[in-house]
Amino acid sequence: MSLAGTHILTVEQFDLAKVEHLFKVADRMLPYARRERVTRVLEGAILGNLFFEPSTRSRLSFGAAFNRLGGHVRETTGFAFSSMAKGESIYDTSRVVSGYVDILVVRHPEEGAVGEFAAATNIPVINGGDGPGEHPTQALLDLYTLCQERGLRPGTLGGVNIAVVGDLRYGRTVHSLTKLLALEDSMRFICVAPSDLQLPDDLMQHLRERGHQVERIDDIAEGIRAADVVYMTRIQQERLPSGVVDGQQDRFRIDASLYDKVCRPGTVLMHPLPRDSRSGPSELTTDLNRYPKFAIFRQTDNGILIRMALFVLVLDVVDQLDITAREVTWYRPERFGVDDTRPMLR
Amino acid sequence: MSLAGTHILTVEQFDLAKVEHLFKVADRMLPYARRERVTRVLEGAILGNLFFEPSTRSRLSFGAAFNRLGGHVRETTGFAFSSMAKGESIYDTSRVVSGYVDILVVRHPEEGAVGEFAAATNIPVINGGDGPGEHPTQALLDLYTLCQERGLRPGTLGGVNIAVVGDLRYGRTVHSLTKLLALEDSMRFICVAPSDLQLPDDLMQHLRERGHQVERIDDIAEGIRAADVVYMTRIQQERLPSGVVDGQQDRFRIDASLYDKVCRPGTVLMHPLPRDSRSGPSELTTDLNRYPKFAIFRQTDNGILIRMALFVLVLDVVDQLDITAREVTWYRPERFGVDDTRPMLR
Amino acid sequence: MSLAGTHILTVEQFDLAKVEHLFKVADRMLPYARRERVTRVLEGAILGNLFFEPSTRSRLSFGAAFNRLGGHVRETTGFAFSSMAKGESIYDTSRVVSGYVDILVVRHPEEGAVGEFAAATNIPVINGGDGPGEHPTQALLDLYTLCQERGLRPGTLGGVNIAVVGDLRYGRTVHSLTKLLALEDSMRFICVAPSDLQLPDDLMQHLRERGHQVERIDDIAEGIRAADVVYMTRIQQERLPSGVVDGQQDRFRIDASLYDKVCRPGTVLMHPLPRDSRSGPSELTTDLNRYPKFAIFRQTDNGILIRMALFVLVLDVVDQLDITAREVTWYRPERFGVDDTRPMLR
Repeated sequence: MSLAGTHILTVEQFDLAKVEHLFKVADRMLPYARRERVTRVLEGAILGNLFFEPSTRSRLSFGAAFNRLGGHVRETTGFAFSSMAKGESIYDTSRVVSGYVDILVVRHPEEGAVGEFAAATNIPVINGGDGPGEHPTQALLDLYTLCQERGLRPGTLGGVNIAVVGDLRYGRTVHSLTKLLALEDSMRFICVAPSDLQLPDDLMQHLRERGHQVERIDDIAEGIRAADVVYMTRIQQERLPSGVVDGQQDRFRIDASLYDKVCRPGTVLMHPLPRDSRSGPSELTTDLNRYPKFAIFRQTDNGILIRMALFVLVLDVVDQLDITAREVTWYRPERFGVDDTRPMLR
Repeated sequence: MSLAGTHILTVEQFDLAKVEHLFKVADRMLPYARRERVTRVLEGAILGNLFFEPSTRSRLSFGAAFNRLGGHVRETTGFAFSSMAKGESIYDTSRVVSGYVDILVVRHPEEGAVGEFAAATNIPVINGGDGPGEHPTQALLDLYTLCQERGLRPGTLGGVNIAVVGDLRYGRTVHSLTKLLALEDSMRFICVAPSDLQLPDDLMQHLRERGHQVERIDDIAEGIRAADVVYMTRIQQERLPSGVVDGQQDRFRIDASLYDKVCRPGTVLMHPLPRDSRSGPSELTTDLNRYPKFAIFRQTDNGILIRMALFVLVLDVVDQLDITAREVTWYRPERFGVDDTRPMLR
Repeated sequence: MSLAGTHILTVEQFDLAKVEHLFKVADRMLPYARRERVTRVLEGAILGNLFFEPSTRSRLSFGAAFNRLGGHVRETTGFAFSSMAKGESIYDTSRVVSGYVDILVVRHPEEGAVGEFAAATNIPVINGGDGPGEHPTQALLDLYTLCQERGLRPGTLGGVNIAVVGDLRYGRTVHSLTKLLALEDSMRFICVAPSDLQLPDDLMQHLRERGHQVERIDDIAEGIRAADVVYMTRIQQERLPSGVVDGQQDRFRIDASLYDKVCRPGTVLMHPLPRDSRSGPSELTTDLNRYPKFAIFRQTDNGILIRMALFVLVLDVVDQLDITAREVTWYRPERFGVDDTRPMLR
């Protein structure tokens, strides 16, 4: 089950055993990610962090995860390599950069482009998002968080009710997470969306074939009532058919009063971020920030764990992780955020 | 008087005791900043260097200061996070990045925005400039240089005459430095500016209440005659009221011949940089570059010391600084610049 | 023959003895560049990687080379310093940055600008390309590769036939490589180009005065027939005089069938990259990628060796290179690229 030297391009590479192995390694990253310990396991290694479309958050997360392992990061933040503008192929770009660095993270606006990068090199390539395609580390960190919040291991989520809300048609994160959850047994998926943005038929079909219960619904209060976990996503106005009024966004919003009124105690709130916090379109209001089961920032914190785990697995240094470790001696707060309900080293 | 875990947002946080403590720590940075010794005190730590408006010099200075302490730097150089364009709040951005890094430097075009970042996180935030607001590290490095050039400690500047010249109305650096100098006893401030760009009344009032002597003057030759220190700033043509001719800039310029003619021996020349070196608007001409009291590049060199000192103070590693230190073995010049009149390890 | 503390601005600084010394040091970089060993020789040092025009490949290569030696990299990727837009001179910018970092790599769109940077500082400056001027590390890596591919040392290339093809008039890389090759004895230069883009007269004259044989020719099949090495470059359509049709580019192209038909066995194919891989303008077609003497990616791999060698020479740490070295323990492939015909540690 070694991932040494492999490309990480899609969640479809993962079965339950691989997911569980990854999550165990991610657990071991906790003291390093949360600044209790420092390791030099990848000292001297270089990550090529190639972002051909802007995604500041993901770029910083991958870079920080590599730094936490002691490695260097070289990166591009522009829309394109200057040389690609002169007609250079992805093959050439990938092969050239492979001579510089030890591992690549590639983000690209076009579906399949990251796969093209991977096809040209023996250096491991991690998909940092390829347009409407995949963003596997996001799906993995979502699943990791979901397991953690419910106190369950992968493969034991049977019986959990998850409400996925918002843009289920175009939302890449929903599709990838759903594919991972499909590996479980007997979950219940409550798909809450405007009819034009409902979960695609093939995904629903796939879930049902795997033995899951799937419902489509367009009323949020009803949709989240039975949920153990609510996975909110943003509806972009421009996705809605013309003629559909702004009110659609209002209909797919959770605020503290709705949560208090209809949710079960302990219902977990998740979101892939960014959350829209402008007063009009906000889908998950800020009055929820201090709720104990408001997990959206724990998701992004966990992104560091998952990305670190993938780095040590594909670069095959899991067993060396602790050899060069020492205690952190600089200041660190108990909690990252002022509204965090748990200390960072849970 | 510990600064561990605190945000550095404004010079108003500093009293004379804190300034003196900071400067003593800055002194200890000298061998590390000037490449005599290397330390690993922040090995494994990560600075998030978030520049929401371009300021190459400040960005490089903060980053280099953190590297000199052994730490990693992750940064953004664009105008905005891509996610903020989608409606993400400063609160969310700050909380997310706090999960990635150990300390933040934030530069932002809007006054107060850096304070908003700080309000959302327990990770220390250093203000790298917030529009017309504050740029505290600039004021601190200015004061550090002024003290060094006059051979004085903070709290002992009484009797020093400082001429501040140029745009005293909008110039952020002048305001911040003035606030710090106001902590001293009985200085003399000679404010040399076009009447439309004179020091604001409230600042003049504040200085007088603190017992300082303040004069407003619009003739530069007269203004710098009695000065021990001249702090030049740039007048931006667009700040001048329409109808005012270019000649205004010429009237607030110091060149070698004016300096030789009117200045006391040993008058220190300072400037927050960038200096405009185009032939027309230049406010401090290049024929002064080799003058021994031309201190403008010592200011920027000292910026590294001050920023390093703030990092070790807020991350609380002052006492560990020398533990992992070793001698530098690579080539370093005696003097950084070809016209420097002093060796870098003064 | 020490390069300690010197600027690297032009190939004209190099004689055969210096080239040979540099190449010997480059050879020693192989285990570090190809991830067999890690060194900390420049731990704590900072490279200022200043790119005033976009060149992602060169920027990443210099940065990775410095990281491989254990050093930090601070960089600018924009078109200009924000302060230069406000009238700051190159002198001031160079002096300021010299207070931050230990060595500078500067890329600039204007010829001579990098020399201006160097003139203002005692910190070593390496020219990363100054517009139509020089790009000395490219020429040195080209020559290094040429020697390696032919199994020869610098100074022993006499009798080698090199065909230089494409834009010989404006092509900066051809000019710089030619100047280096001129140091050899009795080579044969076959200059294959449209007449409007032939090698400039002064360069041809220079080669002949040094005792080389030089021919100008505009038929590629004939031109490469006798070549031991073919150095291809890209013809940019906009360089051709108006009225000249697209067909010109087609006439200066090598594909597998032309190579098989006319080239001697073992003819080396080189290219400074980027190669244009669009179907129309491609000058070196992808069906050559698996040919054993297709050396274009070995050139770029060797760029890391040459840049590392220059860094350790100008920073004077050659003798300390192995002191802190240790074995790499993370995953690395046998070959970087999927079509590579040789393992990375040749």
